[in-house]
Amino acid sequence: MDQQFVLYAIPVSGVLALLYAFMKASWISRQDVGTETMATIAGHIADGALAFLKREYKVLIIFVISVAILLGFANSNRPETSPIIAVSFIVGALCSALAGFFGMRVATKANVRTTNAARTGLADALNIAFSGGLVMGLSVVGLGVLGLSTLFIIYSNMFTDVAEVINLISGFSLGASSIALFARVGGGIYTKAADVGADLAGKVYEGIPEDDPRNPATIADNVGDNVGDVAGMGADLFESYVGSIIGTMVLGAAFVPAFNSMGVSPVAAVMLPLIIAAVGIIVSIVGSFFVKVKEGGNPQHGLNMGEFGASFIMAGLSYVIIDYFLPASWTAEGFTYTSLNVFYAVLIGLASGVLIGLITEYYCSTDNKPVIEIARQSITGAATNIIAGLGTGMMSTGLPIIVLSIAIVASYHFAGLYGIAIAALGMLSVTGIQLAVDAYGPISDNAGGIAEMAALPPEVRERTDKLDAVGNTTAAIGKGFAIGSAALTALALFAAFRQQAHIETLDISKPIIMAGLFIGAMLPFVFSALAMGAVGRAAGDMIREVGRQFNEIPGLREGTATAEFSHCVDISTKAAIREMVLPGMLGVLVPVVVGFTSKEMLGGLLAGVTSSGVLMAIFQSNAGGAWDNAKKRIEGKIEFDGVVYGKGSDTHKAAVVGDTVGDPLKDTSGPSLNILMKLIAVVALVIAPLL
Amino acid sequence: MDQQFVLYAIPVSGVLALLYAFMKASWISRQDVGTETMATIAGHIADGALAFLKREYKVLIIFVISVAILLGFANSNRPETSPIIAVSFIVGALCSALAGFFGMRVATKANVRTTNAARTGLADALNIAFSGGLVMGLSVVGLGVLGLSTLFIIYSNMFTDVAEVINLISGFSLGASSIALFARVGGGIYTKAADVGADLAGKVYEGIPEDDPRNPATIADNVGDNVGDVAGMGADLFESYVGSIIGTMVLGAAFVPAFNSMGVSPVAAVMLPLIIAAVGIIVSIVGSFFVKVKEGGNPQHGLNMGEFGASFIMAGLSYVIIDYFLPASWTAEGFTYTSLNVFYAVLIGLASGVLIGLITEYYCSTDNKPVIEIARQSITGAATNIIAGLGTGMMSTGLPIIVLSIAIVASYHFAGLYGIAIAALGMLSVTGIQLAVDAYGPISDNAGGIAEMAALPPEVRERTDKLDAVGNTTAAIGKGFAIGSAALTALALFAAFRQQAHIETLDISKPIIMAGLFIGAMLPFVFSALAMGAVGRAAGDMIREVGRQFNEIPGLREGTATAEFSHCVDISTKAAIREMVLPGMLGVLVPVVVGFTSKEMLGGLLAGVTSSGVLMAIFQSNAGGAWDNAKKRIEGKIEFDGVVYGKGSDTHKAAVVGDTVGDPLKDTSGPSLNILMKLIAVVALVIAPLL
Repeated sequence: MDQQFVLYAIPVSGVLALLYAFMKASWISRQDVGTETMATIAGHIADGALAFLKREYKVLIIFVISVAILLGFANSNRPETSPIIAVSFIVGALCSALAGFFGMRVATKANVRTTNAARTGLADALNIAFSGGLVMGLSVVGLGVLGLSTLFIIYSNMFTDVAEVINLISGFSLGASSIALFARVGGGIYTKAADVGADLAGKVYEGIPEDDPRNPATIADNVGDNVGDVAGMGADLFESYVGSIIGTMVLGAAFVPAFNSMGVSPVAAVMLPLIIAAVGIIVSIVGSFFVKVKEGGNPQHGLNMGEFGASFIMAGLSYVIIDYFLPASWTAEGFTYTSLNVFYAVLIGLASGVLIGLITEYYCSTDNKPVIEIARQSITGAATNIIAGLGTGMMSTGLPIIVLSIAIVASYHFAGLYGIAIAALGMLSVTGIQLAVDAYGPISDNAGGIAEMAALPPEVRERTDKLDAVGNTTAAIGKGFAIGSAALTALALFAAFRQQAHIETLDISKPIIMAGLFIGAMLPFVFSALAMGAVGRAAGDMIREVGRQFNEIPGLREGTATAEFSHCVDISTKAAIREMVLPGMLGVLVPVVVGFTSKEMLGGLLAGVTSSGVLMAIFQSNAGGAWDNAKKRIEGKIEFDGVVYGKGSDTHKAAVVGDTVGDPLKDTSGPSLNILMKLIAVVALVIAPLL
Repeated sequence: MDQQFVLYAIPVSGVLALLYAFMKASWISRQDVGTETMATIAGHIADGALAFLKREYKVLIIFVISVAILLGFANSNRPETSPIIAVSFIVGALCSALAGFFGMRVATKANVRTTNAARTGLADALNIAFSGGLVMGLSVVGLGVLGLSTLFIIYSNMFTDVAEVINLISGFSLGASSIALFARVGGGIYTKAADVGADLAGKVYEGIPEDDPRNPATIADNVGDNVGDVAGMGADLFESYVGSIIGTMVLGAAFVPAFNSMGVSPVAAVMLPLIIAAVGIIVSIVGSFFVKVKEGGNPQHGLNMGEFGASFIMAGLSYVIIDYFLPASWTAEGFTYTSLNVFYAVLIGLASGVLIGLITEYYCSTDNKPVIEIARQSITGAATNIIAGLGTGMMSTGLPIIVLSIAIVASYHFAGLYGIAIAALGMLSVTGIQLAVDAYGPISDNAGGIAEMAALPPEVRERTDKLDAVGNTTAAIGKGFAIGSAALTALALFAAFRQQAHIETLDISKPIIMAGLFIGAMLPFVFSALAMGAVGRAAGDMIREVGRQFNEIPGLREGTATAEFSHCVDISTKAAIREMVLPGMLGVLVPVVVGFTSKEMLGGLLAGVTSSGVLMAIFQSNAGGAWDNAKKRIEGKIEFDGVVYGKGSDTHKAAVVGDTVGDPLKDTSGPSLNILMKLIAVVALVIAPLL
């Protein structure tokens, strides 16, 4: 195949993804929004979400411009670096922001249309909700591939050294990571401040129902689903996707001399990750056609078909691609690679992602022992519920870490550090459809909220709940991929950093590296504390505002007056913007300060933040998920020793405490850690030539 | 000074400590126990504690013998190892068990006598409680120094190679560590099962008061204070103490050739830690004379005088010792040492211990912002209380880790890895008096419990509460020393392991080491989960037993019948013994399995378990401490926005949930992690020659 043809086909696949996403978005817009009340409510949600994004981006623009100027300056007076890296940074930030914007706009259209479709049946509702998710998924992969490949083509024409080109491109990843961290943290604070605030207001002030259209915080709560779970998650996966592609490219650059000497096109050495990603886009689109449900059927089946079908096809195609573009065997830096072994590494990535997902599901699913045990411990009150949940979260780190460790060792065995990087890429190759399934969850959730607020008949809510529930298993798998790929990507970036910073060995028993390890391991704890504190403070503001409205607005309690939703939206927005700055800056500044103190210490820090970050992420996500489902399990009635416990019982109240504690853990601090560890690794990689 | 004289003076100081402890113990025995009721209650507590220890030691004997046989076999057929290491192991286990036994026996005598003394005044009560603690403290340091130095003298006469001698002695540390882990975990499960069980029984079954002599679990609760906080803590510090001495000796052995070539006595190279420890014993005894309080005075002053006075004297004496025994300057393995720099490392250890203690106190004290904030978050319920406490615990890891990192880098700067080891030793040199202050807390606590059960006038309880409360600051400092020294000791043992296992570099970016790092970092999470789960299950058993007694024993509810205390004691005992096995074995087996897979992976595992262990220990201890004090703060009435919250309010109830959640974190899993990381390092060190 012609090298130039391949080079230019890649951005075309990105454009294709965006075109298809645009088509889907237009189709969604053309669907009926339902009653006037529904339209009004959905309008409030969409406006709130847009208002938040606008304010968030306003703050981020200042950050992006400042960092870009710093990057430009820092790289201007050294022969081996170029200020053009600032351009990559801006483009990366822009693509990430755009992906979040597109996804969220469409999600806030799809939610009400899903509700409306659910008034008549399940099949159309699934179609709309999934299409909404697909727009997000394809925007992410489309902008990722388009942005990266375009920059690569332009820089390749400007610079002859591939290593130089790739170093410049790493700025793209830095841009994506910084936006992702702020979006995840800000969105996470927003959504949980609203959620926790709305829930607790009912407790603090008597007579205010928790999940009721009269509660002024409900709109903010629904906005939160969109800015946190859709836009935040989109930015998160954009970052993983881009990070794993660049990590693999950096390591692949080491193959260029070997490929040149063998007369093989050296483009494949660095472009393979982009080629796989481009093919993954097409596979994701194909997979999306499998997602269908017949009226009365189980939507789970369709989603599984889509996600697993796509993964399966991708595994096969990966073999074809690797076999075609890579030579059968080559040697670089003392390691002998074979194309078959590289393919094995991809398979290891896919398999370990699925395994971690299944383990996650075991610990969080309503049908398994851990969640049932938490439910049982709720009988003796909130304290034992919390102890059981914390214990479950901590215990759930065991198996995933063993799987991850085996994946690291095995993929390295097959293809060295390149193997680790490409294993991460293997996990993420079908991000397009994975993200569609992930984003479909909050859209269905929102659809349910709208059904309730618009006082639609209960069967509508039942249908949207069914859609929401079946997304959980697939979402658990998605979470496994997210955590697994984050860890592997961070390791790949870590290896790339070591290469770029010319560090020979990172002997962990050296005190300076040990100190770095300790500080790195500490960051996820302090970062989580900041995020949780932010949620607590913002939820407090929200509770007071709800109380004020119920006291001051005549008729609100009786349901004859409308709540001032916008005030609550405003509180969440302001709090999220204010509180995202400190943890966000932590992720950017600490590696810079430590790196300029000692580059070896920075190496230790990367090891520490990755190991402790993965653990804290798994612990927090799974504890939160298990608490959530223990509460749901009790709501569905559960029997212990002949006594049945259900909604409204003291046992249920204890379980609600656990659920509320888990909220910021699983939706704010936990998922942010995935980004934190990658961001720190990317910052290290970008500043490596300066150290 | 004559080398032989020094060598034999060391065990004499150990004997001295034991004699003085014996004298104090006899003095305590001669004090009046008070009324017959008091004697009966105290008898129950003492019997329960003894029964637990007997059963625990029965299980441990099997473990010790099995490991000793394995150790003997494994070391029998290699020229460079000797089966005699099994003897060291048994002696170490025995000394640890004896120290725990002595301390606990005296504590269960001192408690009731403290109560009785408190009937008439404060001064005598302080004297008895502190003397009880001092017996524990001196037993620990006396047996540690006596055991180690005796083995050293015997082995030195059998083997000429110092490295060989020290390797054999490391078995002593392994014995101490294994007993410590089981004692800490078992004791921790015992005490918290009883405590949580007694507290929650009041919630689950109506009409059963929480802290009432009629509650059948109260005796078990008081037994728990002794087996967990006295015997468990004693074994813990015995281990730290012995571990840091041996870690320093192993590293000091590298100086022997240099000292020989300079004509300096090589004994000092390895014996310095023991000399410092021996002097520390005398200093601790001297310091104990400062602990006095005048009637109506503040006991805090006396404790401070004792602990800080001893530390201050020790700092000065360390200079004299180091200056006397070490040459002014020498070079070993490419590093140039000076005696002054070694002294600086000791000072760094002392200073960082105090700093970490002060930071701990900041986060946990009732007067500071973090605890007040947790109290404030309790207004909106248990969920926000828990979120705030988790956040505080996580945030509190930040500064201690920075202090620790600076201590690592600075002490290494001054005196290499030896500097890190001797910094840990510096922290622990006055363990005798530190432990006395620590153990004085649970004795006063028990004294208060007895006062309540014996229905003594309220001023007695007030006096014992006053004693208990003032121990808190000093105990916080002690906790700082425990965590700081555990981390430094683990690092010193880690370095010693690397040396003994002949590992050139431990490059953390190598996948096998990275996998070890991940698995190591995961262990504290899984270990904590096991410990917390054990407490939860055992507390559940306790709650059911309390309910059974209230239902089946006529007159118990009315206070006319006596509860079957012994059943509750039995439940806690059985549960603790049963549940300590799995987490205990985890600490012993994982390093063996990983080590025989790959010694480099074991190196990574040590780095992982140390970094994540320190963090989880700080997080759990401080979260638990802060929750506890937030509850106490509310009990002492606190005002927010013009509203006063006190005991019995909903805010208080929310704070009680936090306190209960914190119990197993701060008293079971958290402190066990200190031991876990050292135990794993010691196991690694012991098996190093076999790898």
